[in-house]
Amino acid sequence: MWYLVLLVILSLIAYFITDELILKLLNLFVKAGLYGIDLCKTEKKKIPEAIGVVSGCVFLVVSFLFIPIIFGNSLMDTQNFPHNEFAEFLAALLSICCMLLLGFADDVLDLRWRYKLLLPTVASLPLLVVYYVNFNSTTFIVPIPLRQWFGISINIGLLYYIYMGMLAVFCTNAINILAGINGLEVGQSVIIALSIIIFDIIELRGDQYKAHAFSLQIMIPYLATTLALMKHNWYPSKVFVGDTFCYVSGMTFAVVGILSHFSKTVLLFFLPQIINFIYSVPQLFHFVPCPRHRLPKYSGETDLLEASRTIIIKKDMNSLTKIIVHVCTLLRVIDKKEDNESIVINNMTLINLFLIKFGPMSELSLTIRLLIFQIICSGIAFIIRYPLASYFYDG
Amino acid sequence: MWYLVLLVILSLIAYFITDELILKLLNLFVKAGLYGIDLCKTEKKKIPEAIGVVSGCVFLVVSFLFIPIIFGNSLMDTQNFPHNEFAEFLAALLSICCMLLLGFADDVLDLRWRYKLLLPTVASLPLLVVYYVNFNSTTFIVPIPLRQWFGISINIGLLYYIYMGMLAVFCTNAINILAGINGLEVGQSVIIALSIIIFDIIELRGDQYKAHAFSLQIMIPYLATTLALMKHNWYPSKVFVGDTFCYVSGMTFAVVGILSHFSKTVLLFFLPQIINFIYSVPQLFHFVPCPRHRLPKYSGETDLLEASRTIIIKKDMNSLTKIIVHVCTLLRVIDKKEDNESIVINNMTLINLFLIKFGPMSELSLTIRLLIFQIICSGIAFIIRYPLASYFYDG
Repeated sequence: MWYLVLLVILSLIAYFITDELILKLLNLFVKAGLYGIDLCKTEKKKIPEAIGVVSGCVFLVVSFLFIPIIFGNSLMDTQNFPHNEFAEFLAALLSICCMLLLGFADDVLDLRWRYKLLLPTVASLPLLVVYYVNFNSTTFIVPIPLRQWFGISINIGLLYYIYMGMLAVFCTNAINILAGINGLEVGQSVIIALSIIIFDIIELRGDQYKAHAFSLQIMIPYLATTLALMKHNWYPSKVFVGDTFCYVSGMTFAVVGILSHFSKTVLLFFLPQIINFIYSVPQLFHFVPCPRHRLPKYSGETDLLEASRTIIIKKDMNSLTKIIVHVCTLLRVIDKKEDNESIVINNMTLINLFLIKFGPMSELSLTIRLLIFQIICSGIAFIIRYPLASYFYDG
Repeated sequence: MWYLVLLVILSLIAYFITDELILKLLNLFVKAGLYGIDLCKTEKKKIPEAIGVVSGCVFLVVSFLFIPIIFGNSLMDTQNFPHNEFAEFLAALLSICCMLLLGFADDVLDLRWRYKLLLPTVASLPLLVVYYVNFNSTTFIVPIPLRQWFGISINIGLLYYIYMGMLAVFCTNAINILAGINGLEVGQSVIIALSIIIFDIIELRGDQYKAHAFSLQIMIPYLATTLALMKHNWYPSKVFVGDTFCYVSGMTFAVVGILSHFSKTVLLFFLPQIINFIYSVPQLFHFVPCPRHRLPKYSGETDLLEASRTIIIKKDMNSLTKIIVHVCTLLRVIDKKEDNESIVINNMTLINLFLIKFGPMSELSLTIRLLIFQIICSGIAFIIRYPLASYFYDG
């Protein structure tokens, strides 16, 4: 395990390089037209966008440099070189590199949705082949209470590969849609990364230690470069991270989940993203009108954020829209104002939900509350994964 | 070899997709500020820049889809899966993907030279590790006439890795500096790619057939997507290819040369680029003044291109500059005009050399002449590689 120490040292260096590099390259981004205006601030200055490409590149470079270290012992004895583990590492980096490219292209060119769904699928192909070749285990262990009907395990075959491909698409997009206020994208990614690292460390003494060592090799440099990005992206943001960062993060988590065989645990750490996604579905699929931006509304007078809203014209409502509004009202997850012609509800994102539940608040408090929720969800994930799972699975 | 037929079919499809996609995405590039003005035309309209990222992405995607086909037979029998060949393919794609990212970042952000030299070196690291693990042959066969002094072969060890790393840096930059007139970057790349493909087909029945099949797997989709790009980049260009294309091309050739063990033959196909590089050295290293652009000068009146020029102030000349100008004059490779205070010479690029040797000509003739020169050089390369080599090496 000496090489994990080396990895930590290398990652520390990566932190400082990323930090430096972001400051150095800031102006290049603004000059290239890659900037945004912070909609939740009074001051309307140009803030460099897509800076995630810097942390992403340093993350990749460190991972490259790390190859000779991880495989150092094996390099002395090339006869018994673990080609399968090496291919695994290369496939992981290849998928991440593809998403870095796609994310940056998206930030620059503003691609259409179909590319955003198609390309992560293609980028995950090398992963799936590696998985097939190295493991090809497509068997689900059935929880004890259900075994009388399904038996101990079910082999779902091809479906498992479809599930893994969809996991990559979900992870890359899920972080991207729980976004828009300073520090939130990076903050949630840091918490997910930390959760995975804690999980790896717990499991490092188990019989799956190799898979968890692999996961650490990816997560530690990722965390280091992301923390450097967070330093500049935290409220009040001096840089925006862009789709680049969200895509790279999502793919990194998916890669680790797939190749280290704990994709279900990774999904548990994505609880807030899953809630946000499900809550967003009515607007994403246009059952409820969806404006171009669903960011909270900033009030210059109070310096606070309020939930942004969308208008549903009553005569345009079809029965599905009616059911959705009705159910959401019953569940008390929307704030509804109604007159004869229209219904006004908050935009259906977790961010706006927090604002209608806790009232208007400053951007910083909102980010912190959402991140505390992410931490609580990680706690729940650990409870499901350990004490609860022992009821449903053997030892 | 049935899969090579499949590869050709898939590559044909890739040709049409690239062609379509370029037309569809044109406006996105202009909207994102990625455009240039063609300096060698009277009409000053916005021409989309960095379109090489489109052909590069399709090239990558096709290569991904190709993984299950190449390794199809082996996938049935995962016990004997050729992990080493798979790692080779992944490392190749990873290096190419990195250069696609770097090239695009360079087109968008206009990076400094140090990154352009540093990043291809890092990007070639996975290649070198794969080479080390799979082959680690660092032995040069000594030509027969020299064997009395050096023996039959010399093992140059680490130096060979440094040579391969430098090859990647050279290839990625060499195409980029023999550029600037419509169709030249793509044209030369097509000729190099065709030369490599011909070489592969000749050798496909030899004992290195596996290495050459590998090379074909990379070169055929590369050629297909590049031809689609050429259709739009040929005189008069409707798109510019950008650094993206040059970097991807250079790395693709380097990857194939390194992993298929014919890097010296690849260098032979780079003869015009090597000549251009050596000829450019005095300006690249600022021994002779180097203006921002060294493109030929367009005359709107005659619609012809002339060599562009640089001014050397006599009192600023150091002895090295004097020697360079003297030697170049003796070799008749510069066009010099002198007065008491200064010397005016053409900018030292192969493009300008053609213009001073053959006189002013249209952009199209110039491109065609340079490409004919590239074809002649490939012919010379084949003569060196086959009839001549048999004098210097045993059968």
